[in-house]
Amino acid sequence: MSLPSMDPGRADGGLHVAEELSQEQCWELLRSKATGRFGFIEQGRVVILPVNYVVDGQSIYFRTTGDGSIAGAVPSPESTFQIDDSRADRSEGWSVLVSGASSRVEDEDLLTRLWGKVMAEPWAGGARNLFIRIQADRVSGRHVHLT
Amino acid sequence: MSLPSMDPGRADGGLHVAEELSQEQCWELLRSKATGRFGFIEQGRVVILPVNYVVDGQSIYFRTTGDGSIAGAVPSPESTFQIDDSRADRSEGWSVLVSGASSRVEDEDLLTRLWGKVMAEPWAGGARNLFIRIQADRVSGRHVHLT
Repeated sequence: MSLPSMDPGRADGGLHVAEELSQEQCWELLRSKATGRFGFIEQGRVVILPVNYVVDGQSIYFRTTGDGSIAGAVPSPESTFQIDDSRADRSEGWSVLVSGASSRVEDEDLLTRLWGKVMAEPWAGGARNLFIRIQADRVSGRHVHLT
Repeated sequence: MSLPSMDPGRADGGLHVAEELSQEQCWELLRSKATGRFGFIEQGRVVILPVNYVVDGQSIYFRTTGDGSIAGAVPSPESTFQIDDSRADRSEGWSVLVSGASSRVEDEDLLTRLWGKVMAEPWAGGARNLFIRIQADRVSGRHVHLT
């Protein structure tokens, strides 16, 4: 078999590199965004759904419907949340992955604080009055770009 | 407990709605983008990683390293691929979720065609010479926006 000649590490005149982000950088990015993705397992299948979220302390919070597929996957000892962004014109991107226990928020003081926080209205509409919390246990991220 | 008064279905003077995308719309969006996310399970945890991809027929293809965590999750009878985009200024977004069997591409004719296709160089760099294929079995998508 003959494959076209190419150097996988180089393109556009630069070298593609991947760098790990520090914990501080990951949290800064998490606090800078308002939409991310919740990843969960439903009947053996990984499902990834966008959510509007807010950071409070070391936790991620978002609203969902009480009878949807996300609610059915919570609580879980290991849930996943992810954000990323990319710029195709610069062959550049970054991503942050958060893992930790998820739960339904039932503490009244916390709910009062969350409802009072500035947070984007869930774009999907409907009654999304269930707050989900992901307590960040592991946070990692990386930045890929050209040198 | 007293919560601030709000109507979860309305904001910005419009009604938030979620609409299912047709199969045609999902594939049109899949063909229009070049970066998406591969979702898989690693030691019981859902992992979501961005990848540069290409569509060929009813399959999604992307390159990865032969010894990375993605390669370790393939082949699988049920893998997940996702794309989305959003516009915060319009409280609007869409997402497409693809499920299906994943495999390492070993067919020489197919490899020749894939290497010949115009495809963004993986931004993460390094030797990413393993092509992963996800044969789309289930494709769904939705569009959330203000009326």
